[in-house]
Amino acid sequence: MIAVAVVDAETSGNVGTIARAMKNFGLRDLYLVDPPDLDPEGEAYGFAGSAREDVLPNATETTFDALVEEFHTVATTATTNEDARKHVRYPFETPAELAESLSAVETDTCIVFGRERVGLTNEELAQVDEVVSIPASADYPVLNLGQAATIVLYELRDLTVEETQHPDAIERADESDIDGLHDQFATLLERINHPDGKRAKTRRLFRRLLGRAHPTPRETRTLRGVLRRASQFAEPPTDGDEER
Amino acid sequence: MIAVAVVDAETSGNVGTIARAMKNFGLRDLYLVDPPDLDPEGEAYGFAGSAREDVLPNATETTFDALVEEFHTVATTATTNEDARKHVRYPFETPAELAESLSAVETDTCIVFGRERVGLTNEELAQVDEVVSIPASADYPVLNLGQAATIVLYELRDLTVEETQHPDAIERADESDIDGLHDQFATLLERINHPDGKRAKTRRLFRRLLGRAHPTPRETRTLRGVLRRASQFAEPPTDGDEER
Repeated sequence: MIAVAVVDAETSGNVGTIARAMKNFGLRDLYLVDPPDLDPEGEAYGFAGSAREDVLPNATETTFDALVEEFHTVATTATTNEDARKHVRYPFETPAELAESLSAVETDTCIVFGRERVGLTNEELAQVDEVVSIPASADYPVLNLGQAATIVLYELRDLTVEETQHPDAIERADESDIDGLHDQFATLLERINHPDGKRAKTRRLFRRLLGRAHPTPRETRTLRGVLRRASQFAEPPTDGDEER
Repeated sequence: MIAVAVVDAETSGNVGTIARAMKNFGLRDLYLVDPPDLDPEGEAYGFAGSAREDVLPNATETTFDALVEEFHTVATTATTNEDARKHVRYPFETPAELAESLSAVETDTCIVFGRERVGLTNEELAQVDEVVSIPASADYPVLNLGQAATIVLYELRDLTVEETQHPDAIERADESDIDGLHDQFATLLERINHPDGKRAKTRRLFRRLLGRAHPTPRETRTLRGVLRRASQFAEPPTDGDEER
């Protein structure tokens, strides 16, 4: 189970943003340490989207020490120590590395987010088990709290989202239909008197283009219709067997 | 070059959030179609972090048609078509797939984000070149505009961030130092009279644990110090060669 905790947030809007990201990525358990006032008419509920119905009202108020005791804790920090001389914010993992390492174990984990301006204190960081840092531009690596949380929860989605809104895979046309399309393209090249010496090259070019694009059944069907009509216009068929 | 456009945003705060994510991930060129009022004292500048100094004031107002003409356009949408019967929002790519496909070509690309509630219209979507959709929970796949933009720009970071704030790689201790640590662990097991029959197993267990953790030079040095002192306390050395 993966839970989320927000420690000492200043603005309730950020709590709402984090609650929304939690629901978007299949998480439910929100813990709050010293939260701001979460007025149902205020910004937390305003920013939470439909997480205002469950994640937010079901949030549990707790203490930092209780989190450390109950969970395998992971803190996020924009600023890391540069090297192995200091270990408060080092070594750290990227969110993608965290997802990978958590996928290999069974543990109740809590992702802990800190204050807006200063994040978690060094004392708090010393108590957590792992440190995560989002790779960002060296010029301006400090993400907004809600945005940082959104990215970390997004990266954990394979562990937390049971079913996405997406179909399993993009539907691709059958090889035989794509082959039929290539035959019709060849027919068109003949009908429009595309130079003999260039036909094979042009067909190969078209094959490479479609090969990269993985056409869907409908794309293939529609293009076949277009090529068929173009061929008919180019040279109206004089006997039945030319049209397929 | 990768640019970002926001079409017809209702709330200026979202424009600020997107500007901040742009700066966090190394992007600079922001285009606005029918933007809300961006008062320097208002929410856009309030949410932009240090992007208030460059990305936001340098934003260009333009039209949707101009974007389509100038750029390879990519739209993001939470809701996709389910299958190949309709092609307005299908096929789509995930943000990670987009990053991969853009890494293979040289093109001026614009990532286009739509309105808060309704996103881009089907008419607008029909004009863009690619559709991207963030995999999220089927229960609630609709991300907030600013959060969706943050994730897409985060995924493009390898194409846009020249240098992150992170060191190149976590510094790992030299193999010889780690080996020295294992020798000292063995010495400790002897000194504390760890059962003869279990020593090899316990050493192997400790070797596996450290092997997974890839200790830093400082971790290794510190643990060696602790083991050395523990060995000394367990059985004070009687002659010089026992201590290393």
